[in-house]
This record gives sequence, C-alpha cells and structure tokens, in this order.
Amino acid sequence: MSYRSIIAGSDSEQPDVTTATSAAAEAFAGYRATSPEARADFLEAVAAEIEAARAEIVEAAVTESHLPEGRISGEVGRTTGQLKMFAGVVRRGDHLGVRIDPALPDRTPLPRADIRQRQIPLGPVAVFGASNFPLAFSTAGGDTASALAAGCPVIVKGHPAHPITGYLVAQAVTRAVQKAGLPAGTFSYLLSTDFKAGIELGQALVVDPRIKAVGFTGSRGGGLAIAAAAAARPEPIPVYAEMSSINPVVVLPGALESDVEALATAYVGSLTLGAGQFCTNPGLLFLPKSEAGDAFLAAAGRATAEAVGATMLTSGIAQAYAKGTATLRATDGVTVVGEGTPGETDAPAPQIVEAARLDGVTDEVFGASGVVVRYDTVDELLPSLDALEGQLTATVHATDADNAAAAQVVAALELKAGRILFNGWPTGVEVGHSMVHGGPFPATSDSRTTSVGSLAIERFQRPVAYQDVPAAILPEAVRDDNPWHLARRIDGELQLP
Amino acid sequence: MSYRSIIAGSDSEQPDVTTATSAAAEAFAGYRATSPEARADFLEAVAAEIEAARAEIVEAAVTESHLPEGRISGEVGRTTGQLKMFAGVVRRGDHLGVRIDPALPDRTPLPRADIRQRQIPLGPVAVFGASNFPLAFSTAGGDTASALAAGCPVIVKGHPAHPITGYLVAQAVTRAVQKAGLPAGTFSYLLSTDFKAGIELGQALVVDPRIKAVGFTGSRGGGLAIAAAAAARPEPIPVYAEMSSINPVVVLPGALESDVEALATAYVGSLTLGAGQFCTNPGLLFLPKSEAGDAFLAAAGRATAEAVGATMLTSGIAQAYAKGTATLRATDGVTVVGEGTPGETDAPAPQIVEAARLDGVTDEVFGASGVVVRYDTVDELLPSLDALEGQLTATVHATDADNAAAAQVVAALELKAGRILFNGWPTGVEVGHSMVHGGPFPATSDSRTTSVGSLAIERFQRPVAYQDVPAAILPEAVRDDNPWHLARRIDGELQLP
Repeated sequence: MSYRSIIAGSDSEQPDVTTATSAAAEAFAGYRATSPEARADFLEAVAAEIEAARAEIVEAAVTESHLPEGRISGEVGRTTGQLKMFAGVVRRGDHLGVRIDPALPDRTPLPRADIRQRQIPLGPVAVFGASNFPLAFSTAGGDTASALAAGCPVIVKGHPAHPITGYLVAQAVTRAVQKAGLPAGTFSYLLSTDFKAGIELGQALVVDPRIKAVGFTGSRGGGLAIAAAAAARPEPIPVYAEMSSINPVVVLPGALESDVEALATAYVGSLTLGAGQFCTNPGLLFLPKSEAGDAFLAAAGRATAEAVGATMLTSGIAQAYAKGTATLRATDGVTVVGEGTPGETDAPAPQIVEAARLDGVTDEVFGASGVVVRYDTVDELLPSLDALEGQLTATVHATDADNAAAAQVVAALELKAGRILFNGWPTGVEVGHSMVHGGPFPATSDSRTTSVGSLAIERFQRPVAYQDVPAAILPEAVRDDNPWHLARRIDGELQLP
Repeated sequence: MSYRSIIAGSDSEQPDVTTATSAAAEAFAGYRATSPEARADFLEAVAAEIEAARAEIVEAAVTESHLPEGRISGEVGRTTGQLKMFAGVVRRGDHLGVRIDPALPDRTPLPRADIRQRQIPLGPVAVFGASNFPLAFSTAGGDTASALAAGCPVIVKGHPAHPITGYLVAQAVTRAVQKAGLPAGTFSYLLSTDFKAGIELGQALVVDPRIKAVGFTGSRGGGLAIAAAAAARPEPIPVYAEMSSINPVVVLPGALESDVEALATAYVGSLTLGAGQFCTNPGLLFLPKSEAGDAFLAAAGRATAEAVGATMLTSGIAQAYAKGTATLRATDGVTVVGEGTPGETDAPAPQIVEAARLDGVTDEVFGASGVVVRYDTVDELLPSLDALEGQLTATVHATDADNAAAAQVVAALELKAGRILFNGWPTGVEVGHSMVHGGPFPATSDSRTTSVGSLAIERFQRPVAYQDVPAAILPEAVRDDNPWHLARRIDGELQLP
C-alpha cells in the first residue's frame, strides 16, 4: 500500500508546510463561517467516510501497530463515535458560550451599552498524533475532531509509525471536505517517514505564523520541545500536549478484604493490556504493609510471571522500555516482584517491581512495567501523594469502611490528576461529556482542559465581545432572534432555548 | 500615611515571598473547600471593608495617582461592584461547570461508568496590579476578585506607584479574611517601593513552586518577562498578562455624513481622557481619504490643540510618553495634525499625528497620542487591518449605509481583538457577564479568556472528572441531590436547577 502527504490545493506528494498552512489560513474564513448544522454534517461525513474505508484502515493499522484486530476495530468505532459526538455538540451549540447583557440606556450614572459575547475559533491547528492509538488519537482522532468542531482548519503531522493508516484516514477526511464543498485547506496531512526530517517538519509547522494552536499526544521530550518552540514564537500560541503519566493507584485496606487474587489479576491485566502502551497505564501502586498486602503482591507477581510480552508499536519503543526497566531495576531499594516472558519480536517481558521509596521510580516507563510502593498508614501515604507530579488519572481501591481515608486521599489526588476513579483501572478512557483526559504538568502542558470528551472543543476557541454592533451585522449566535436555538446567558442567567 | 507588606502568619513588614506563598499553599485546602454561599459572603465582605475605608482610600489614591477625585471615587465603586458581581456568580455556581454522564451498566459492548466533572481552583495566584487603575486593576481588582471567586488564595505584588492605596486596600481584604474566619494565607500583600528590588520580588513570586497562576496588567516588557519566567519553571504555569494595545478605530464613510465636528471632539475626548492612560486608549484611527475625512482631521487637530496635558501617573510614564511621541514624530511619513499644551508637572502635551503608512507607527505610546492613517477604499483598508497585531478592542464608526463594508471590517477585526464596538469609544470597560477585556497577543499573553467580567473566573480553574466515586465522597457540586442547586450538563444536555 502507498502513502503520501495530502496537501490542499497542491499535487505535491512532499510534506510542504507553507503550502499547507497557507491553504489552511485561506480556508479559515469559509470554514469558520459554516452553520452548526453544516459543520455537524461535515463531522458526520468524516465518520461515514472512515466507516466506508474501515476494512482497508483496519488492515493497515493492524499491520503497522502490531495491535490485535479486535482492538483496532474497536478503535475505529471509537474514532467515528467521537466525531459523531462532536457533531451533536456542534448542533446544540453550547460551546459557542453565548452571553448577552442587554443595553440599559437609563442606568445612572452611566448608561450600559448592549454587549454580547460568543466564542470564535482560534485559527488553523496543527495536530501531532500518537503512536499508540493509530486512529483515536491520530489523524482524525480527538484533537482533529475537536479542532474541526470548533471551526479550526487542521493540519495533521502524520505519525511515521503508521503512515499508511494515517494516509487512508486522511483520504477519508479529504473526501468529506470535498463532498461538503468546504475550502480545500480545511484539512491537510503532512507526512515524512524519515525520523529526523519528521522532527524538522513538525518544528516548521509549530513555528509557522499561520498556525494558532497545537494538539499533541506523545512523549514528554517531544511535547516539551513543541511547547518551547510555540512559546518562543513572535506570537506565542497554546499547546495542548498530553505527555507523561504514571497513573498512581492507591489500594486502601478495605479493598484487600475480599478477593485479593482477583484484584491482583485485574491489576496485572490493566498493566499489560496492549503491551502496557497506554497513557493511562497504572505504573505506580500504593499498597498497605499488611498480610493482605503481601498476598496481593504475591498474586500480582504470579500473574505477571504468567504474562507474555506482546510486540510493541515500534522497535524504538521496545528499546526504550528495555532501558527504562533496566534503570528501574538498578535503582537502590528496588526488587523484582514478578517478571513475564518476552514475546517474539520487540516484545519485552512485563514486570512488576517493589520500591522501598518513591525517589527515582516515578519516571514513566512506557510499557507493561509496574512499581509497587508499600505504606503503613494513610498519614504516611498522604505526603507521598503530595510529592507526585501531575497525572492523567489517579485510582483508588476502597470499600465503604475506607471512606474517611478515601476522602483524604481524593482531596490530595484531585490536585494531582485530571480524573479520579474508584474500584476500576485507568486504562479505558470513555469518550463523553464529563471525561477529563488531562491533568497538571507533566501529564499535560495545560491542565485547564481535556483532550478527550466534548469539553475539548473549548481549547480551540476564544471569546469576543460585540458592543452596540448593529443587528444587521451581528453574528447569528448572538442575534436577538436566536436562529440557532442556543442556550444563552442573559444578564448572567442561563436560559435554555 | 504608612505602608508595608501584609503577610499572613508573619509580623514581618518585609516582603517575604516564601512566607507568603507557604501561607497561601497552607490556606488553599481550607479556602477552596468553602461553600458557594460562604465564598460569596466573603467577597461581599471585602467590598464592604473597602467601602468602609473609602474616604481614606480615595485620598491616598488621588495623591498617589494624580487622577481626579471623581474618577478615583468611581473606581472604588467599580472595584466593589466587581467583587459583588463575582459574589453573585459564585452563589449561582455556573462557573463550577458541572457535567454528569450517568452510568450505563447495560451498554454493549462495554458498560459505561458513572462520570462526573467539575472545575476546581488551580491553587495560589500571584497578582500584579496596574499603575493606571490603582483600585479596579490592582490590589483587590479584577484579577484578585476572580481568583478569590474561583477559590484560589491570592498574593498581590503591590505596585510601587500607589503603595499607600494598595496597603489600605490590602488591610481591608485582610480584615474580611479575619472576620470570615478564613485561613490567614488566603490573602497576602507584598510591597517593595524600590524599583529594582520590586522586580526581583515579582520574579521570585512567579517562580515560587507554590504559585499556580499569575494575573498581570502592565507593560509589554513586564508581561513578557513574567511569561518567560513562568514558562521556564520546572512546572510551567498559566500567565494572564494584559499588556499592549493601540485599539484601532475604523471610521467608515457614512459616519462622516453627520456631525463631523462632534465625532472629532469625541475622539479627542477619548484619546485624552485620564491623560490617555488607558489600555483601551484609541491610539490608531483609520479615516477615509475624502473631504469629510479632511474636515474630521482638521476638527480633531483643533480639539487637540485646545487640550492641556494632565499630570501622568509617574515621572517614568511621562518620560516614556515623551520618548514615544518623539520617535513617532521622527518616523518617515509622519506629520503632526494637532498638539496641545503641556500641563504643570509630568503633564506632556496631547498630540495627534497623521501617518502615510502603518510601518513604524503601531507600537503603543502609553498616553494621549493618536495616529491617523487614511484609506481610499475598504479593499485597501482590509489588508491594513489584517496586518495589525492583537488588540484589546477595535472600534467601528458607521451608519446603516456602511453595513456591507462594516461586515467585512468586523470579520477582519474579530480575528484581531477581544472586543468590537460600534459608534462609541473603547475607553470605559463595562464590568459585566459579556465583557471581554482580552485579545490576541500582544494585547494579552492568553487570548482564551478575559481579565474583566465574570468569565474571568474560569481562568483560574481546571476540570476534574470523578469516575465511579462513592456518593459519600463525591464533592457537593456533583452529587445527585444537587445541594447547591446548580445548572448541570446531564449526558451533554444543559439542565437548569
């Protein structure tokens, strides 16, 4: 199968940044002017085009990612479902954040002008997809879907780990753009499969003055480099980089009073799922120093020993895992609890280690590597939680008997993580209205938002106020007759349509 | 009158950053846990304490700022009104952004967990007040009010141009903190009247790891320095710096068909108001090349010639104005249209110049200095608007006859400015729910928000999702019984309480 860049208004197969960003800048006025209905139809058309190419896309993604077909097929559904969810949000229009403070001509000492507010899109957005989700966090994944929903043209920097998958999805998006009669520059796909040239391509994209925001999912190093480049621009721009998380799990004593074996097996299941290649992989677990805790650890060690490594996304990722786990095992106070068997190619063994202290064991090791730290009392645990860096998720296992301790743990964890979950595992991120896939630095570069769920649209917008603007010129969203049937805040009070 | 730092839990009169930030960090848990009612009561108590000290505050501020008593007195009302408005917003609770996606245990292929979302405060906030609004944009001004409303402890870096005013207001806030029984570290005031030591104090505050966000109103140089320091921290933090704007005004031909003299007088009135010391001062005006345009310019020149300079906020600001206007007048293609008379001390003459082109005349000159650029047709005007940097405001003067051109002008201006207004002048920023006092770089360091109006609260928050968290532990805001009577988004649909 073939692959190449797809640049609006250009026959070039080369990843030409300037041509793509110029086309995006030119497309912006037309694309942002689309009505909620037209934009929602377009997002659904993107989903339909991806579904229409499903067989081809799944085949390519399975080959390129080494992930099982069931997982990839599910990821297609997740990707198209996400696009459809954003279509629904756009139709409803709440993301436009309309506020109206009517004029008060008789107010003293000064009359009040008529002031109306709406959110407008920022402009062309550059999207850097992830290696570990070739669909849901890639070419037409969450960042692309939310930026398009906001009214921003998108330029995807294709991931070299899945160039064919990316190309097929980019073709699908491009077909939807064409069929909807949208400006060609609404979407472009820039691909370089040469690693070094790809980094330069990405940097050129981020510093291009026509780009107004960046979505990124990947490594801490990659995210920080992009954030630094964006901050150093003559006009700095927002960067939404989802980077690094070890997703702490706190097991409270009550959780060990029932089936310790089942709990340990579920833990190892989450840790080794997809070769551990999830941003939400539970890399750190706090376990009581108790007999039940010993039993949990022993059971987790046995379950890990039975696990076989799966082929990782790339050889580079497998090598980084080998290096990271070796460093971990060489750290003072670290002992191996359980180690699985390597698989065939680039499929290193899963492992769990116990660490005597947090120092030196909190760097993310991308893959199926877990660290267990024991604690005596909740009073001893809390400072450890306070010492953690920002996280995407934090998990608590507890029963009602743990409620007092759990409340203290939640108060500490909510300052550290974007999502707190109980009695489950953090892998598996629901695409919904309430989801937060974000969190304090270094989990992301911007804790004020999420990269999954409908709140993600708001990242790509900014507010504009219209003061005494004549009715004939006012944007539809803020007109008196409310042609889009929007919920609006009138004089500070929310009113449904 | 005396002045000094006020640091929670410390008798020191020295501006001790670490003591203040430690107290703020310690206060955070208690302050963020306040109910909407308690927090709103506190904001109203701050307003009441300021009102109680009104006479003393007005006297100090008039002396320190050289601004007239009527203006300062109005600013006290604006400041307390702003605090009361935020109290109302906090009581209503919409800023908590509650979303609930109930569990779907029977969903296939996978059940859906119960997921709830609310916004939580970021943590202690550092506020740098402005010289030109010793009250409304200073110690208990918009940044402080919105951060406190969000649930963030605040540390104000007192402005050396109004140390007594700042101290009196800080005392008022401190009294309110004490009477409300809130943790002492909820508010501190750090003051150094030595210019260089003050800059070092500010830098130390921004890089302190306990500070989680910064609000700033001031110069472009100051704002950029703070943004750079914040971005270089091991944990970068958001900076909301309101910096630099020349607030373009577009006069369309229709606006010149009625009373040109009155329009020109109003323009000069806005330009010279408060010695031109407003972030929203109309520094650039686009005027048709026509006889009516000539008449407007001549009238504006006469009005300027009649204007007398008022004493500026500081000698430094007066010197910067002199330097800026001299540079402007030495720029190729610039001719003087009208020049007023200097006032007594540090009160340079207002001026209006005409510039043959935009190059070299778009840097902000803080004070009563206006640049007029002529245009022939709207087609010639639009590229000039596209070439502008980001602005706080953009103004259009037009009649219905101009609607077609005005629509094009608005489409260009809304990509450049946070607020667009018609047939008025940008000085005078209404504190309301729909106001945007923000805009693209360099007007601010973060276009996604506003520093005036109730939307400003959201700057100091981030979302957290709660997945399958037991009812006994769930925060009040997201509980099923909705004890705070909040509007909530259930499964994506807004529901009023």
